[in-house]
Amino acid sequence: MAKDKVLAYPIIAVNDANTKHLFDNRYGTGQSTVDGILRATNILISGLNFVVVGYGWCGRGLAIRAKGAGAKVIVCEVDPLRALEAVMDGYQVMSLKEAAKIGDVFVTVTGDKNVITKSHFQKMKDGAIVANSGHFNVEIDIPSLEALSQKKRKIKEFVEEYTLDDGRKIFLLGEGRLINLAAAEGHPAVVMDMSFANQAMSVLFLLDKGKKLEKQVYPVPKEIDDEIARMKLKTMGISIDKLTAEQRKYLAGWEEGT
Amino acid sequence: MAKDKVLAYPIIAVNDANTKHLFDNRYGTGQSTVDGILRATNILISGLNFVVVGYGWCGRGLAIRAKGAGAKVIVCEVDPLRALEAVMDGYQVMSLKEAAKIGDVFVTVTGDKNVITKSHFQKMKDGAIVANSGHFNVEIDIPSLEALSQKKRKIKEFVEEYTLDDGRKIFLLGEGRLINLAAAEGHPAVVMDMSFANQAMSVLFLLDKGKKLEKQVYPVPKEIDDEIARMKLKTMGISIDKLTAEQRKYLAGWEEGT
Amino acid sequence: MAKDKVLAYPIIAVNDANTKHLFDNRYGTGQSTVDGILRATNILISGLNFVVVGYGWCGRGLAIRAKGAGAKVIVCEVDPLRALEAVMDGYQVMSLKEAAKIGDVFVTVTGDKNVITKSHFQKMKDGAIVANSGHFNVEIDIPSLEALSQKKRKIKEFVEEYTLDDGRKIFLLGEGRLINLAAAEGHPAVVMDMSFANQAMSVLFLLDKGKKLEKQVYPVPKEIDDEIARMKLKTMGISIDKLTAEQRKYLAGWEEGT
Amino acid sequence: MAKDKVLAYPIIAVNDANTKHLFDNRYGTGQSTVDGILRATNILISGLNFVVVGYGWCGRGLAIRAKGAGAKVIVCEVDPLRALEAVMDGYQVMSLKEAAKIGDVFVTVTGDKNVITKSHFQKMKDGAIVANSGHFNVEIDIPSLEALSQKKRKIKEFVEEYTLDDGRKIFLLGEGRLINLAAAEGHPAVVMDMSFANQAMSVLFLLDKGKKLEKQVYPVPKEIDDEIARMKLKTMGISIDKLTAEQRKYLAGWEEGT
Repeated sequence: MAKDKVLAYPIIAVNDANTKHLFDNRYGTGQSTVDGILRATNILISGLNFVVVGYGWCGRGLAIRAKGAGAKVIVCEVDPLRALEAVMDGYQVMSLKEAAKIGDVFVTVTGDKNVITKSHFQKMKDGAIVANSGHFNVEIDIPSLEALSQKKRKIKEFVEEYTLDDGRKIFLLGEGRLINLAAAEGHPAVVMDMSFANQAMSVLFLLDKGKKLEKQVYPVPKEIDDEIARMKLKTMGISIDKLTAEQRKYLAGWEEGT
Repeated sequence: MAKDKVLAYPIIAVNDANTKHLFDNRYGTGQSTVDGILRATNILISGLNFVVVGYGWCGRGLAIRAKGAGAKVIVCEVDPLRALEAVMDGYQVMSLKEAAKIGDVFVTVTGDKNVITKSHFQKMKDGAIVANSGHFNVEIDIPSLEALSQKKRKIKEFVEEYTLDDGRKIFLLGEGRLINLAAAEGHPAVVMDMSFANQAMSVLFLLDKGKKLEKQVYPVPKEIDDEIARMKLKTMGISIDKLTAEQRKYLAGWEEGT
Repeated sequence: MAKDKVLAYPIIAVNDANTKHLFDNRYGTGQSTVDGILRATNILISGLNFVVVGYGWCGRGLAIRAKGAGAKVIVCEVDPLRALEAVMDGYQVMSLKEAAKIGDVFVTVTGDKNVITKSHFQKMKDGAIVANSGHFNVEIDIPSLEALSQKKRKIKEFVEEYTLDDGRKIFLLGEGRLINLAAAEGHPAVVMDMSFANQAMSVLFLLDKGKKLEKQVYPVPKEIDDEIARMKLKTMGISIDKLTAEQRKYLAGWEEGT
Repeated sequence: MAKDKVLAYPIIAVNDANTKHLFDNRYGTGQSTVDGILRATNILISGLNFVVVGYGWCGRGLAIRAKGAGAKVIVCEVDPLRALEAVMDGYQVMSLKEAAKIGDVFVTVTGDKNVITKSHFQKMKDGAIVANSGHFNVEIDIPSLEALSQKKRKIKEFVEEYTLDDGRKIFLLGEGRLINLAAAEGHPAVVMDMSFANQAMSVLFLLDKGKKLEKQVYPVPKEIDDEIARMKLKTMGISIDKLTAEQRKYLAGWEEGT
């Protein structure tokens, strides 16, 4: 909207604050997505082929938690850099076409639409579980799944069983809506606190400086971001070091060293 | 009871079967205990000091899952060998007396009684969470906690807040009963299947051979244990190798080699 | 030999002591095998398909270290129980026949012979690395590899390049001998100390009690094992709890509780 | 230098390319630093208190590898955001002053000077090991260590033993120079390949476009970065998905959705 010059007032992109996306999206989504899947299904994660579609912050958080729960994690990602990071982080990386054949659980965290679609459903194993923890319920192409199925029934809260024409069953969780919100309680308060602090402190900032800002999208000021992290550490009883004046100078300089 | 010669009939110790205790106790308890704590509290596990009291199979399963969820895991164990394994497995190991001061969450998985007791509650931080995933609700010395408290109230299903005389609050989950059964759904079906298979196949074995057995405790026969593991792998679509005759002979012999 | 009654004197199976095989075989072999491979090849472990053949203590130690170094670990194991544990521990488990096609590095830790053999070499990718960290240089069927190759040359200390008839290259490390001894320095002193303590204290035990023992294989007495663990913890500055008299009684009894 | 307008020609900051710093600094430094320490000392990493000073890319890589090797990792970091990430990643985070008392191994990866200094040496345990894997040999304040010591001797290649006035011994590795270069072979070729590709392709870019650039520091163009990642995946035999036109449009738009 900024590009199209249709913003009516200055905006602070709170979601891009480090104390927001590095924590809420990663640690919050990671834990709460696994939590949502467990509450919906009570499966044992250990030993499963757990397919994470998308390796942004949410995907990274989810992948590490699924691995930590004993799964064999498979990552699908369209960006070559992120895909390579996933490889180096120890995950199996492959196209979704390949993953569709072996996955036990699939979770979309891409922010895009029609990510798991007809051709993937056609390849899935009997009993595959499909969920979304990205933006909306458009990541999974549910109309295609409906079209492929001869029967659909709710077998448990948040679990819909689709019986395909060849008899295979696919389980869709929470109607494709965010599974951590649908079946669990969303992010824990202790990670949302930082997100809310960003919102609150950004509003204060706008109140103070907003008049001088243009109708653009601004990042959360680094001082706010740092201050939130500092307060959070303090509440956890953790103290860290400070740079000495000499160290600060050394870091800034290029004359000493090399 | 066998020692005291008061057994009325032969017993098969199904809990000692490898396909039972190596799986149900370890992977089942590990996952479902974290699950129970999350359903009761919705805390973020990442970054917490998570104290696992007892490093048997349940404790190992719990420790690895808590670590996998991002916690800093502390293990307390009375057996020196197990304590040393916990150290080598990368956990902080200390006496419960020391751990009491820094833990955010405490879970007992010892099979013993009065494990967390008065002197520990006295040292805990404000906000500490205490739960049990061992045998019974005797692992946590609840009467001591009651005696130390000026007030007690249920703040949420499965969460009781005890306010100590000095104002600190300690949260007891599920009244000290097994938290994975109290607040979650117990072990996933896919791990209990092996435990039930052990029970079923052991009953068949007793039916067949029971007449010839003494009034003692017998282990689950190895063939049954192996057969269950083999069937389980098959249902997961996993195939493994078999020893060749030559390899079998080599393993049994002492003449070749060295 | 005990079975064949050809033992000339009583034996204590030091290798079976917990403070030996749980530590030396697992943590020692795990670290030193990866170390040996790195010193020989200087490859980056992250992102590789690392095939561990055998899931005994050595195999477990190696698998966890390779995973910890960022590899995608594949476990091959003939025992169904162990294979199932490997699955639940989050590893890919498959037959060596399948693994042969995708592995980047293969390490045998089985204690058996001809584990990696002709049919496996025929399937391997160009550039595959093969090493042994089990008992002897019989785990890898080197004569078969020689027979399949048109050329062989040493490209670096501990690294032999075999060029197969179709041009693929396979790298054999340390001539198939224990790679942690061949290319690295074997187990660290701090884990061997416990193994040596077992040997020393078992010799003292034999000196004291040997006259009364039969020509059989005896385990290391539990008191020795425990004492070694206790001393080791002490040198690490770690203190653990002791059972109270009440707790000891509770554990031994069957009357209280359920 | 750009700020001071003293650059003589346009510069491309190759070290900031994603395919450089995300891989070489993280995965390369992580593995090779542990490798260097092992070659110098042959200690067992499992169970040690391993202090990583600095949680940039090098520090992250080192922390995850040390954890993967079984260590209890402690992170020291001056930036509150990074410190908080380290906490959430499951590490113990504390000031170096506190860590100095309990660490078994200390590694600096800060890019700054005098990070481990007099007051820290004074608190260290007998037998502590100190190494650097950051920029230069200025991260460890060696003159202070010298001044505190009554004796110094080389006990092994790359290992210098300093005996302090109170008899405690501190071991300095590789004279404080980069331990992965001093005692091991630096980064594996398979991660340096991407760094070199960045250099080569950036030089080609400068040749082509350099005339039109100002005397500033430029980032590596994203197309170059992506292309290198794509080639790397290809050499690993890994194929990934591509966005459909519909998906590309959805990601770019703000009209559909929410």
